[in-house]
Amino acid sequence: MESTRTRTRRATINDVASAAGLSRGTVSRVVNGERYVSEDAKLAVEEAILRVGYVRNSVARNLVRQKSGAIGLIIHEPHSLLFEDPNIGSILLGANAVLSAADYQLVSLIIDSERDSRRVADYLQGGLVDGAVIVSARASDPIALAVKNLGVPAAFVGHPPGIPDIPYVAIDNAAAAEAITARLLGTGRTRVGMIACALDRDSGQDRLAGFKAAMGDLFDPGLVVEYPLYTYGFGLEGMQELLRRRPDLDGVFAASDAVAAGAMTALQESGRQIPADVGIVGFDDSSWALRCRPQLSTVRQPADLLGKRAAELVLAQIRGLPSPAEVLETSVMWRGSA
Amino acid sequence: MESTRTRTRRATINDVASAAGLSRGTVSRVVNGERYVSEDAKLAVEEAILRVGYVRNSVARNLVRQKSGAIGLIIHEPHSLLFEDPNIGSILLGANAVLSAADYQLVSLIIDSERDSRRVADYLQGGLVDGAVIVSARASDPIALAVKNLGVPAAFVGHPPGIPDIPYVAIDNAAAAEAITARLLGTGRTRVGMIACALDRDSGQDRLAGFKAAMGDLFDPGLVVEYPLYTYGFGLEGMQELLRRRPDLDGVFAASDAVAAGAMTALQESGRQIPADVGIVGFDDSSWALRCRPQLSTVRQPADLLGKRAAELVLAQIRGLPSPAEVLETSVMWRGSA
Repeated sequence: MESTRTRTRRATINDVASAAGLSRGTVSRVVNGERYVSEDAKLAVEEAILRVGYVRNSVARNLVRQKSGAIGLIIHEPHSLLFEDPNIGSILLGANAVLSAADYQLVSLIIDSERDSRRVADYLQGGLVDGAVIVSARASDPIALAVKNLGVPAAFVGHPPGIPDIPYVAIDNAAAAEAITARLLGTGRTRVGMIACALDRDSGQDRLAGFKAAMGDLFDPGLVVEYPLYTYGFGLEGMQELLRRRPDLDGVFAASDAVAAGAMTALQESGRQIPADVGIVGFDDSSWALRCRPQLSTVRQPADLLGKRAAELVLAQIRGLPSPAEVLETSVMWRGSA
Repeated sequence: MESTRTRTRRATINDVASAAGLSRGTVSRVVNGERYVSEDAKLAVEEAILRVGYVRNSVARNLVRQKSGAIGLIIHEPHSLLFEDPNIGSILLGANAVLSAADYQLVSLIIDSERDSRRVADYLQGGLVDGAVIVSARASDPIALAVKNLGVPAAFVGHPPGIPDIPYVAIDNAAAAEAITARLLGTGRTRVGMIACALDRDSGQDRLAGFKAAMGDLFDPGLVVEYPLYTYGFGLEGMQELLRRRPDLDGVFAASDAVAAGAMTALQESGRQIPADVGIVGFDDSSWALRCRPQLSTVRQPADLLGKRAAELVLAQIRGLPSPAEVLETSVMWRGSA
């Protein structure tokens, strides 16, 4: 797949040696990652490789073997959320660490529209990636369907219902939500609401289910407000709505830390003290949690590890090894907000 | 580049027609995007394409022409900043919108280590992208050098010094920083400090230069604190340090909105009123600015448009059209923080 636009022949290892002023053997040792090469020689070779446009063996080998050496990270998130949710960044960096160590290039593919969705399916079909990690898939996701039908090695972060055949790594959102709601109730709160989000996804549905389970007889459906996305803005709006519905509310479970941060702003603007008047808990333990004042009590989910394990599941499939689904542990981080 | 792992032959348009229960002609009209096809037929064909793993013409054509149909977005940011800076998300989505409309697939390549940097250079050499947008490059960036030597169509967001031959789209950071500092001085402040960040990049250097220019004789080098990254955490730390150095400070220019948000937390925790005791201004007009209380006075930079224009510069080069560098307008957004 060499472009013929700007070059007439592919640079060879001899060109690198000549440009670096070193022997072919030294260049070869550097390129193959062997020991007993001086740092100066390494630097000179690296510089010469870039200068002459030499394609390393790994790339050439991949081209011959009809492998791209790349793994796609498919992020299916609406525009507004993409960079407000630090989990996605942590998943990406976790996956990148594992793939980088295995000499695979992570390529992120963002789906922001129907058109994107179709084009990404085409891209997967074109052999430009050897596998895919899929984040934020929803039930009947067309990409998930495409991956399944193409037989591309793949793994989900999260566990979308209705797609049973692809391995996944997930957390138990319902159990974690139940645990933190129970802890909130343990501080003596009785009038507790929830700002629920993203009910089109397993994470959103399961967090609401866990909240209901913990509330038991105290559960009041009128104290659940629902929004499409886990955002600061919906947290602000949701808290204002809950306070209108129930001014003497004394506790709230926000479906994510960003949502909780927005809710805390609304509580403070309404003159309520946190945690004296209202106790609040979130979900994620992302950077939002430590920026809040008081700091947020929340569920820690290992976003970085979700990305790492999902990447490992894809590599396992490429190597013909077993790739069982995995559910990672979460824990409650108790701080000042409740 | 078809994978031979799971399939023995490439699916044809006949397979799609058979799976969809439609004529070859109807399938062909859908695949070629022609009019006068019913919505039902379109859906059936789309579904059948995914089911049988048919590779659309555009992908096949690209493979024959040794084009990937993909454009890389190379993001050179340290781990911690990647998803704290909403500008990067806006640049990505802006570029994606332009490339998606031109039927190119945007693939994001994150550089988080030296190893990543080398691998991305290899990836570019392997012909897996037809062009590249480079974000957050620094002086003597190895990727920039690789792109230049390979002759890959490319554009920078920002204008790293020392790499004159690649087109770029940028803002005038120095002029914008000078304008907002002048506006802050116009509120009667005389003891004004700066939390400067990322001085290894043109944006960081230029914002400091603009601050100095506006301060003129009032400039006091002891009231500039310097940090490596534009983060909330460094804003918090920087403000605490400035208050130690000069407890009667009455104004501060934070090098980004995230930095300003951290600084505002430090000011409020020290018991100072904003803007009565200390006026503060930021840079970006990102989502941070509207989340602050009071809301932040800042420089609006068109991050989305930076991404769009950079993508257009790459497409222009692919099409053999001129691709002149471009400097976009910024404006001062005056709100409650100063």
